[in-house]
Amino acid sequence: MGYFLGEYDVAVIGAGHAGIEAAMAAARLGTKTILFTLSLDAIANLPCNPSIGGTAKGHLVREIDALGGVMGIAADHTFLQSRMLNRGKGPAVHSLRVQADRRKYHAYMKKLLESQENLDLKQAEVTKIKVQNGKITKVITRLGAEYTVKTCIIASGTYLNGVIHVGEVSYESGPDGIVPAIGLSKSLEENGITLRRFKTGTPPRVHRRSINFDALEKQSGDEKIIPFSFTTDEKLENKVDCYIAYTNEDTHQIIRDNLDRSPIYSGRIAAIGPRYCPSIEDKIVRFSDKPRHQLFVEPMGLDTEEMYLQGISSSLPEDVQMKFLRSIKGFENLQVMRNAYAIEYDCCNPLDLKPTLEFKAIKGLFGAGQFNGTSGYEEAAAQGLIAGINAARLVLGQAEVTLARSTSYIGTLIDDLVTKGCSDPYRMMTSRSEFRLLLRQDNADERLTPIGYNIGLIDEERYQQFMEKIEQIKKEKERVQKVNIAPSVPLNELLVSRGTAPMVTGTKLADLIRRPQLNYLDLAPFDENRPGLPDDVIEQVEIQIKYAGYIKKQLMEVEEIKRLEQKKLPEDLDYGQINGLRLEAREKLQRVQPRDIGQASRISGVNPADVSTLLIWLEQHGGK
Amino acid sequence: MGYFLGEYDVAVIGAGHAGIEAAMAAARLGTKTILFTLSLDAIANLPCNPSIGGTAKGHLVREIDALGGVMGIAADHTFLQSRMLNRGKGPAVHSLRVQADRRKYHAYMKKLLESQENLDLKQAEVTKIKVQNGKITKVITRLGAEYTVKTCIIASGTYLNGVIHVGEVSYESGPDGIVPAIGLSKSLEENGITLRRFKTGTPPRVHRRSINFDALEKQSGDEKIIPFSFTTDEKLENKVDCYIAYTNEDTHQIIRDNLDRSPIYSGRIAAIGPRYCPSIEDKIVRFSDKPRHQLFVEPMGLDTEEMYLQGISSSLPEDVQMKFLRSIKGFENLQVMRNAYAIEYDCCNPLDLKPTLEFKAIKGLFGAGQFNGTSGYEEAAAQGLIAGINAARLVLGQAEVTLARSTSYIGTLIDDLVTKGCSDPYRMMTSRSEFRLLLRQDNADERLTPIGYNIGLIDEERYQQFMEKIEQIKKEKERVQKVNIAPSVPLNELLVSRGTAPMVTGTKLADLIRRPQLNYLDLAPFDENRPGLPDDVIEQVEIQIKYAGYIKKQLMEVEEIKRLEQKKLPEDLDYGQINGLRLEAREKLQRVQPRDIGQASRISGVNPADVSTLLIWLEQHGGK
Repeated sequence: MGYFLGEYDVAVIGAGHAGIEAAMAAARLGTKTILFTLSLDAIANLPCNPSIGGTAKGHLVREIDALGGVMGIAADHTFLQSRMLNRGKGPAVHSLRVQADRRKYHAYMKKLLESQENLDLKQAEVTKIKVQNGKITKVITRLGAEYTVKTCIIASGTYLNGVIHVGEVSYESGPDGIVPAIGLSKSLEENGITLRRFKTGTPPRVHRRSINFDALEKQSGDEKIIPFSFTTDEKLENKVDCYIAYTNEDTHQIIRDNLDRSPIYSGRIAAIGPRYCPSIEDKIVRFSDKPRHQLFVEPMGLDTEEMYLQGISSSLPEDVQMKFLRSIKGFENLQVMRNAYAIEYDCCNPLDLKPTLEFKAIKGLFGAGQFNGTSGYEEAAAQGLIAGINAARLVLGQAEVTLARSTSYIGTLIDDLVTKGCSDPYRMMTSRSEFRLLLRQDNADERLTPIGYNIGLIDEERYQQFMEKIEQIKKEKERVQKVNIAPSVPLNELLVSRGTAPMVTGTKLADLIRRPQLNYLDLAPFDENRPGLPDDVIEQVEIQIKYAGYIKKQLMEVEEIKRLEQKKLPEDLDYGQINGLRLEAREKLQRVQPRDIGQASRISGVNPADVSTLLIWLEQHGGK
Repeated sequence: MGYFLGEYDVAVIGAGHAGIEAAMAAARLGTKTILFTLSLDAIANLPCNPSIGGTAKGHLVREIDALGGVMGIAADHTFLQSRMLNRGKGPAVHSLRVQADRRKYHAYMKKLLESQENLDLKQAEVTKIKVQNGKITKVITRLGAEYTVKTCIIASGTYLNGVIHVGEVSYESGPDGIVPAIGLSKSLEENGITLRRFKTGTPPRVHRRSINFDALEKQSGDEKIIPFSFTTDEKLENKVDCYIAYTNEDTHQIIRDNLDRSPIYSGRIAAIGPRYCPSIEDKIVRFSDKPRHQLFVEPMGLDTEEMYLQGISSSLPEDVQMKFLRSIKGFENLQVMRNAYAIEYDCCNPLDLKPTLEFKAIKGLFGAGQFNGTSGYEEAAAQGLIAGINAARLVLGQAEVTLARSTSYIGTLIDDLVTKGCSDPYRMMTSRSEFRLLLRQDNADERLTPIGYNIGLIDEERYQQFMEKIEQIKKEKERVQKVNIAPSVPLNELLVSRGTAPMVTGTKLADLIRRPQLNYLDLAPFDENRPGLPDDVIEQVEIQIKYAGYIKKQLMEVEEIKRLEQKKLPEDLDYGQINGLRLEAREKLQRVQPRDIGQASRISGVNPADVSTLLIWLEQHGGK
């Protein structure tokens, strides 16, 4: 019954956010790629809130863009509202977030994929993989089509054995009425891959006309919009407003009264949900002292009256959902078009993956996205990009690409996954990085575009523009450190009005910029030879001057880590042989098989004494 | 577990073409309506070719529009290419056909439904109906939500127990990767409804760049576009070209060689497919003398590279599909994005329905669309409209609305269904009407807009515009019958150049128009007092003058039929009592329970002698 249907360098299973980046990267790097999806109509679906970015997630999108990925460009082309979150805080946590037009985002991505050279799109369910001599060799579809492949990236999202739960009712399904993927899990397990069950929740979608907006707070977009992509130069505009509503004591009481009907609390779902994206019932149990929770009312698109309620996912029965929703001010007559639900799905254990996202045990087989145990579109896209790059490079016989924790959230995400694993769907947060001040959303290009260029995903023209920007920043930083500003009446008036000390002698411009009360633009009238510079250059100059001390300190920490990372550990090292390791450390090291002392030191259960033991062993055994 | 979630006058199950018209009509007539769909993203899906109209189907769309339905307006707003088919033939068979932008059509309809007062949209699977004392009382969803309803319209399309077949492989699924509806059939059967299995086929969808267009024939749209809707007055434009390809002897040989692998020919699908929309393997078996078959290559939308191959549906295995497709000139490197498949589904027997589309045995329960055993979007929409109107009128305590065969294809369609039944998916054709010359696409408004107005689906403004048009036609017809045209040299030159006899004496303008070689516009220079009239008025004047004789003859036949239709037969008549009926006629009459002698005479198996027997019986029993 089987029949041969094609030969590819890279097969990608799943056309969600991970699969798209993987397929685009592999195809753009010149490898012959095929992207399988259960439904061409569900490409780049946004089954949860159609927003891209947010705290730390916005950083990921900018990093993806800086490397040459596509998520940022698609978001720029299809957003309804854009806001830079956390503007009141330091630049390290400024995070861009847009509300996307859900179906436009889909259409944009579908067309992008269709137009990509070296990339074939195929609506088909891959139900089997074939592994020979520890190497992926084939993928096989439900219909029996066999594709010979050199590499394969699994990006199955929440579709793999997807089961939807609403109260006491469960049924097999993918999100948004799409069929689940039901064959592949068995084949993966037959090939030695351990699967786990994770779950995630989705809030209800409701009809605009059933909401009393007068009872809600309006939330408008930014006046001046920063795009996600470093390449976007069109003028961007907000198209809609969003709104904020609040739960109240009644809402909470209704939920508490019905907790026994939740499939989670009654034990009917054993799968683990995302700790940092809890359902409303989780919030009420875990933060029982909070008198109210915020939720956001956001449009799904310009061509629909459907609105999305962010922050109130639930797997309680539909009647309970209706009751607690209608207890919220402004929602008294709420009409629910799609009820909230939890979806349970199969995923792998990322400890089985290398930092390239290749399975340690199966050459050429990669995992990306929710399949690797993460949560979120941006986390998925970030992994897809790295998996796609490495699959292509494996085919092309080029060296692996991994990103350091010190240069990116993407590197941090993947290092966390493959070093610490995850016991619930992993979500990126700025607090996960020890280098927050270095990994800002504003300097993602500086950190990663040279890497993207070396890989081949950034073209010459973009790279030259980037280099020019870097040069401008450098020159202006040098200039402001040299230029002396003389005291004057108007300048001192400004200083005093801002609550900072007046000048008595000439002062370097950089020193004035460094004062927290002042910024670069304030000083324009007193800076005669200031060149005309683009906003993004000015922003870099200002941040790099203002935070120079902190940045220098973090850079020194990076150096220390790099030193440890140069101490490579051999592949397939038997930690049983190494005397002096505690039992727990030995087990964990054996499981993770860290690449270097740096990674070993981050494994939970490996303490500084164990690291010393490893360093001594390495010296004795001639490891670098 | 069940819980009450609402009370509605009309519940519609399924948001395809039937469900949309049903829900819109019911809501617009003032009844509180809910429309259930398995996926809000699949509303108005065009799972087969995204075209609206075509021979006879175009007539249905214009009739739907003339009555106040929405299909025509949506098609006008979202089409890519428009053509009036059969222009070379008489006006009776002129048929409008557009290629729609598939996802735009969906978005347009979704927004329209969302914006309709009295109409709620709900993504939920109805799995049960509740019948009490022979009357529908409730619909119940998979989650356990119970809705109290006065009427319910089943418009489940191909979703009901949907099973997809491709060669040797079968699996449960709706079209385009949407989940099937798996609970409702059992409940229908428990309530005494007999279900049957029908099937339909879908051609493959392919990537534009894989086609060699130089090897195909181009097919452009009309220069002057006639809209579907009588209300559309914007300027319409074609946006794309379509193409024609041909199968060849190699294609046919490949198919013949693999017929044993077809699920139909091997007997694995027992369900019956549409006779007049056959798969390519059917065509090759049934028309074995034809050396080639035409197929159309048509875009799916402006924002995708997917193209649709019309005319080559198949359920052969995917490898055979690839082989025969690539044997076609221009398709040597064809890349298939979605393979062809057959889908099998549950449907009712329309003999169980009244002409209102209500089930005879269950008050308030209606069927519409493919569920009633038809094929095609337009056939579905037509039934949805009539079911929606009658459900609303039942709730409002108003008289039934049925359309006569002599006034519409919609009436013909429904009369065929409920009188003759169907043994395969019923498709409309102009040959199904005995009144083709009356039922033209150009005069659908004249035939049906007064009915739509009386029902309440045509508003006052539109009705006044319509009345004005009718008045203009009437006046101009009177004028051209009066105006005398004098012979003149230029006029005779024209006549001779057109191959018709020159004039010797004055002639009525109408008589000149009646000549086949001339038309109304030709005669403008010789018709001094001609008023300025819109194109559609001119068209009517011309057709009504030219075909007056034929039209008169058909109108007389209509009168004869009306006479028979006035002879009503009692409801629930026991034909076993009536002496003189042949056994076959008795059985058929008992099954169909015709409403009048006219309908009785159209039942296959009831011959003129049986009709005489019925007439005699009626006279004896005081029937009218």
